[in-house]
Amino acid sequence: MSRKEVAKRAGVSEATVSRVLNSVGPIAEKTRDRVLAAAKELNYHPSALAKNFVKRKSGNIGVILPYVPKVHIFSTYYFSEILSGVGEAVKQHGYDLLLLFTTPQEGVMNYSLYFQTQKVDACIILGARDTLEEREALEDLERNGYPFCLVNQRFEGSNYNGVDADHVQGSYEAVQYLLQQGAREIGFVNGPTMYSNSRDRLQGYRKALDEAGVAFRTDLLYEGNYSRKSGEALARVIAEQVPRPDAVFAANDRMAIGLLQGWKAIGLEAGRDIALIGYDNSDTAKVTDPPLTSVDVPFFEMGRQAVQLLMDEMSAVNELSEEHSKQRIHLLPTKLVVRRSSQWDHN
Amino acid sequence: MSRKEVAKRAGVSEATVSRVLNSVGPIAEKTRDRVLAAAKELNYHPSALAKNFVKRKSGNIGVILPYVPKVHIFSTYYFSEILSGVGEAVKQHGYDLLLLFTTPQEGVMNYSLYFQTQKVDACIILGARDTLEEREALEDLERNGYPFCLVNQRFEGSNYNGVDADHVQGSYEAVQYLLQQGAREIGFVNGPTMYSNSRDRLQGYRKALDEAGVAFRTDLLYEGNYSRKSGEALARVIAEQVPRPDAVFAANDRMAIGLLQGWKAIGLEAGRDIALIGYDNSDTAKVTDPPLTSVDVPFFEMGRQAVQLLMDEMSAVNELSEEHSKQRIHLLPTKLVVRRSSQWDHN
Repeated sequence: MSRKEVAKRAGVSEATVSRVLNSVGPIAEKTRDRVLAAAKELNYHPSALAKNFVKRKSGNIGVILPYVPKVHIFSTYYFSEILSGVGEAVKQHGYDLLLLFTTPQEGVMNYSLYFQTQKVDACIILGARDTLEEREALEDLERNGYPFCLVNQRFEGSNYNGVDADHVQGSYEAVQYLLQQGAREIGFVNGPTMYSNSRDRLQGYRKALDEAGVAFRTDLLYEGNYSRKSGEALARVIAEQVPRPDAVFAANDRMAIGLLQGWKAIGLEAGRDIALIGYDNSDTAKVTDPPLTSVDVPFFEMGRQAVQLLMDEMSAVNELSEEHSKQRIHLLPTKLVVRRSSQWDHN
Repeated sequence: MSRKEVAKRAGVSEATVSRVLNSVGPIAEKTRDRVLAAAKELNYHPSALAKNFVKRKSGNIGVILPYVPKVHIFSTYYFSEILSGVGEAVKQHGYDLLLLFTTPQEGVMNYSLYFQTQKVDACIILGARDTLEEREALEDLERNGYPFCLVNQRFEGSNYNGVDADHVQGSYEAVQYLLQQGAREIGFVNGPTMYSNSRDRLQGYRKALDEAGVAFRTDLLYEGNYSRKSGEALARVIAEQVPRPDAVFAANDRMAIGLLQGWKAIGLEAGRDIALIGYDNSDTAKVTDPPLTSVDVPFFEMGRQAVQLLMDEMSAVNELSEEHSKQRIHLLPTKLVVRRSSQWDHN
């Protein structure tokens, strides 16, 4: 049996059969259904077919993840939501999802190898850090023309495919809300600045202070590593600062929850003694005591759009068209969700 | 460059080089280090090498997951922890992780296809249900001699590789604890019985009641679908039962948290008006109000051991030895973690 027979039965060209079965490019719903029905009647399995029809097709979308020993990466809301969105879209397009854990200590990163050994047709890079090795690995992908997409990370001076959220605006609105509540001394627990999204948050924080005419003070800046523990470790430091800050904005919910628990242990209550806002609007934010005010980020949708962007790019390459490669950065909106932790009795 | 050169430099046989680079079989740490060092010096990349050395090797371990549209599967504690453990072990053995979403509506499941199209060398099956299609797909894998391992699911009458937790004992201890607190009318919110782990929990629940001489009553059994919403939907039903149960044991934390929140909405408090125990000991259990008593399950370790079991099996196949294939079921212990929700004022 051959692609020819499927094409014949569906009444389309062989190229169209390939495109449908590889999910490349826009195809009319009706045509797609006809091809899939024909393939089914002839007892063809699309993912098996894909390998035979198109050269250098693995049928896999790769997701490159930072590898940190013993960290339960899938249990972090941020990664798990993005992966859920990626998984949903990958499945819809008939691909499988290959997870690739990078080990920085090997020295040079070589993402192109995954394409050269035909492990993936395109890849999404999560948790990229702004380092020289990373920049070189991405430059190499770009030079080779391998389709890739960054999620939640941008590299200044480069024009890579990317899906990001508007963390400047998200942080701006959180801090603005605290200012409107009357808070003036607002601590900021940020993550490491090698992530562009940490730098975005700092920018939003400053913007809100500037607009309100409140001085930006470096003694109110704290750095954690986005873990609950790093937030907990800062709880006492912040509580003992003289004068104690009115409020704290934390760059993710995990650190905020660490603060909340650390404060509770010394009798300080978020939403009563000190206002607290987290970031991510994770499932956990809804069930803490008090419930955590947080900035909602559409991580699931970001994962979905990253896959769509890659599909568009692969189809554009196949059609020798530049049309799809114009809009290469998707920037999605965030939203402040107010709960009890950001209340504060300023008397 | 060839495997020969690496073998020569490391002073070992070519077969040993293959085994090290494919992570098959037990190899002395020293030998392994020597081979890896030689490969590195000769600028060989193990995962690229693997493809050349061994026929029918993809270098991928597959994880077959149930596909449910719009459910954020990676955001459930259960899946995310198992996947973290799988990812950790897969990485250690130099493999990559291929996620395969099954779509039940396609009718027949064909897991063997993933092996025939050389997408995976072995696979782990998560969230398997006890259905005819599933049993046929597994029988087919077994017949073909493809290495696979079930996690958290067993099929009576079959002897497949599997890693499971002792859910009978876990449930038994939870219900026993409630009985020791003086509770007699103990509701049980279970998940669907197509999962062996749901049936295990029911068995543990009955065992504890039987031992205490408390009658088993079907009017105290409720079924959810392991989602928070399904727990919340049962909150009022249970609260309005006459007489109201003293305590509820829920088969996972999500459903327990749904109950807790549903009760809170009608003024009923877990740990005061009614005792509540969940299952999984998820991160969220620690931060609810009140904190949730729960049964800890070593999901991360279960994922890790599933990979190890597959590695042992693949090495046993290569060595034509039966030694590794004797112990095919790993049953890991659970542990009750007592927090405030299981308190109950029985006056």
